[in-house]
Amino acid sequence: MKAKLSMKEVFDYIDSNKNRAIELLSKLVSQPSVAATGQGIKECSELVMKLLDELGANPKLNDIGEGSPVVSGEIKSKRNPEKTILFYNHYDVQPPEPLELWDSPPFTPAIRDGKMYGRGVSDDKGELTGRVKLTEAFLKTWKDVPCNFKFLFEGEEEIGSIHLSQYLKKYPEIFKADGVVWEFGGVDPNGRPQVVLGVKGILYVQLTTNVAKKDVHSSLGAIVQNPAWRLVGALNTLKSGEKILIPGWYDDVRKFTKQELELIRQAPYDAKAIKADLGIRNFIAKMSIEEAKRALVGKPTCTICGIYSGYTGPGSKTVLPSEAFAKVDFRLVPDQDPDDLVRKLRKYLVTQGYSDVKITYSEGERAKRTSPKEPIAIAAKFAAEQVYKTASIVQVSSAGTGPMYLFNAPCVAIGGGHAFSNAHAPNENKQLEYLVKGMKWVASTVNRFAEMRIS
Amino acid sequence: MKAKLSMKEVFDYIDSNKNRAIELLSKLVSQPSVAATGQGIKECSELVMKLLDELGANPKLNDIGEGSPVVSGEIKSKRNPEKTILFYNHYDVQPPEPLELWDSPPFTPAIRDGKMYGRGVSDDKGELTGRVKLTEAFLKTWKDVPCNFKFLFEGEEEIGSIHLSQYLKKYPEIFKADGVVWEFGGVDPNGRPQVVLGVKGILYVQLTTNVAKKDVHSSLGAIVQNPAWRLVGALNTLKSGEKILIPGWYDDVRKFTKQELELIRQAPYDAKAIKADLGIRNFIAKMSIEEAKRALVGKPTCTICGIYSGYTGPGSKTVLPSEAFAKVDFRLVPDQDPDDLVRKLRKYLVTQGYSDVKITYSEGERAKRTSPKEPIAIAAKFAAEQVYKTASIVQVSSAGTGPMYLFNAPCVAIGGGHAFSNAHAPNENKQLEYLVKGMKWVASTVNRFAEMRIS
Repeated sequence: MKAKLSMKEVFDYIDSNKNRAIELLSKLVSQPSVAATGQGIKECSELVMKLLDELGANPKLNDIGEGSPVVSGEIKSKRNPEKTILFYNHYDVQPPEPLELWDSPPFTPAIRDGKMYGRGVSDDKGELTGRVKLTEAFLKTWKDVPCNFKFLFEGEEEIGSIHLSQYLKKYPEIFKADGVVWEFGGVDPNGRPQVVLGVKGILYVQLTTNVAKKDVHSSLGAIVQNPAWRLVGALNTLKSGEKILIPGWYDDVRKFTKQELELIRQAPYDAKAIKADLGIRNFIAKMSIEEAKRALVGKPTCTICGIYSGYTGPGSKTVLPSEAFAKVDFRLVPDQDPDDLVRKLRKYLVTQGYSDVKITYSEGERAKRTSPKEPIAIAAKFAAEQVYKTASIVQVSSAGTGPMYLFNAPCVAIGGGHAFSNAHAPNENKQLEYLVKGMKWVASTVNRFAEMRIS
Repeated sequence: MKAKLSMKEVFDYIDSNKNRAIELLSKLVSQPSVAATGQGIKECSELVMKLLDELGANPKLNDIGEGSPVVSGEIKSKRNPEKTILFYNHYDVQPPEPLELWDSPPFTPAIRDGKMYGRGVSDDKGELTGRVKLTEAFLKTWKDVPCNFKFLFEGEEEIGSIHLSQYLKKYPEIFKADGVVWEFGGVDPNGRPQVVLGVKGILYVQLTTNVAKKDVHSSLGAIVQNPAWRLVGALNTLKSGEKILIPGWYDDVRKFTKQELELIRQAPYDAKAIKADLGIRNFIAKMSIEEAKRALVGKPTCTICGIYSGYTGPGSKTVLPSEAFAKVDFRLVPDQDPDDLVRKLRKYLVTQGYSDVKITYSEGERAKRTSPKEPIAIAAKFAAEQVYKTASIVQVSSAGTGPMYLFNAPCVAIGGGHAFSNAHAPNENKQLEYLVKGMKWVASTVNRFAEMRIS
């Protein structure tokens, strides 16, 4: 291993080249790349290829023949060629609609009051820009990177990373690393850096019931089975209060460690502001703030995301529907397996007398958590406090879901994100101050991680 | 009372003036009168006024200042001025959409294979034409009518007769009669005349649940109450199997008389054809044909006509909805009272812990049945067999609902209807043969009724 180099030169480079990073972000946002419609996906993948090529990262366009290609690249470290960090990001964005709610056009980046506005500026082109530009900072100053850098930029994150597991099968080498820096991360509403160590999993199903071959007059309710009643009955067997009644559902739930419980306890949570924002008086089942914090991190849930049958317009229409369906989202925790759980769900509905309920399995992802004792978690926490000069917050897991489980290595979600960035909403924005801070945080984390693993 | 006159002259007049009746029907159908949109309502009410004026029925345009006006008229009988029969019909029609499924334009009547096609040709302009033209037949031949004739032609039947009870309050005299001939009636698929003696009632409500003030990400399902789950839970308390669990729901249900049970037993019911048409193998709860027949006539029901919450498009969307609602149709039997029952429903949901479920009471009509022993029922059965030369069928009640309860007098639903007339559907049609037969049936019934009551 070569002599230790200072992060100061890297930070200085980041500071003095801030405007070049902003220019790159603007260029990326100007290129639409909507996975839901396919708009600009090809062009954006080529643009991202070019960026990696300019870095000297030997980019590859990985393609399984459907969906958006995955762009990957790698820069070997001279000083530390045994260790590899992987940057997972995505170049696709959410659809920009509703357009009329944007103050400036979504694909024409505009800077106002220290923020850039545009679709994808925060999620995830800001992070992608940061990863490219911090790499450039290492290369320009150190003429090296702290360990091997891998880049995996996918183009379907906003539609559930629907092909990513197939990419893992076909191109396993682009997923291999000793640590992963996740696509999102940043500071909380009070500017405190948050080290997020996991995501929940998901099992998303549609339950469908059919009876008659056409909608009929509701006077026939006296003699014809109603699929909406069947669906309501079937749904009602799934939960009692907040407990999921399907046998074996909780078998594989990993218990919180003492350290996790302590981290959850330590994490600030502004319940009052959150309740006001949602317009609710109480959390479900009148849970306490501490119960709510633990539930967000570690409670398996069962949520009706949508339900539909028959006539739903104004006033009354006397119809007996022929079909009903519900979309149900089960959030999972380690070590629950969606494939196993969907089998348990099927079996349970049959034993409850609902073999007529059709189950469509539309999404399944496992949860993932990285131990706070992992070197990369420790490095991220250390670097956060170095860059932000304030205590950091360790989040055991996000309440949300992502394809983190596809990566075998420990994983931290850190970056240049901030509250009120309107990700997925009109007027998505990026505080340019945090673009810079996020780059420094990630650079410092990676450097620390490289050092720690070597020791 | 004057000397008895023969129906033969009346029937002969009807036969020889058949083409004039068809011309009138064509004229009425050419005038759109869609209550749902208001299209042509005013013009059609004026046309109907003119018809009654030409009959010498001293028409009145009754108007409460909202909705469609009610046209009424009366012809006094010289021979029998103490008795009054009322013809209840409607001049409004269902919307003609979907237009592309019509073989000829809905408001341009076309005759093919003995049928006239057009919106309203069967429901209810064919019946309305019949009532006007049979009156003319009496007047032209007898120079009198068998008893006083009253006409009540409303313009909102197709939107639930939403103002008819207000008309009853403001113009009670136009509802008064000794017997009522209802707006529909006719023959079954085998050409057998059906005397229908009642309708079910209805209580139609919307149940709505709200929690957060906006839809949120479904990862918050761990801590935020889900209105769809609240709705599913509330609905599930309403029924066990086909039994409605709301206390007191069945308190006012009038038991079938022995005669009613016998009439239900005698009524033919082609269960096989009906199951094939609906694409079902069994009736609900595997009820027998006889159970199904009794249920259609006399079972209180609770039907989900529609249910909605959250995301119902293709694929999956991870949303926790802020609102859910269901539209629920309770069919009622004599002597259930919808106003009483909606109070019981409210109270029940509160006792079940669902005081958060908002109930919107959108429709309430009582059931009504006329005893088969009533002179008008006996007259209708006698006349049917005289005109059709075949046994008639007495239906204790239709499974459907109408504002029959607003009329105090005994009521029969008879007329010139036939199976496969596509009422409410594209290519609505009227078999012109039954236009004539229906006129004779009604004329003969009214004459018999007038005689019977006098004896």
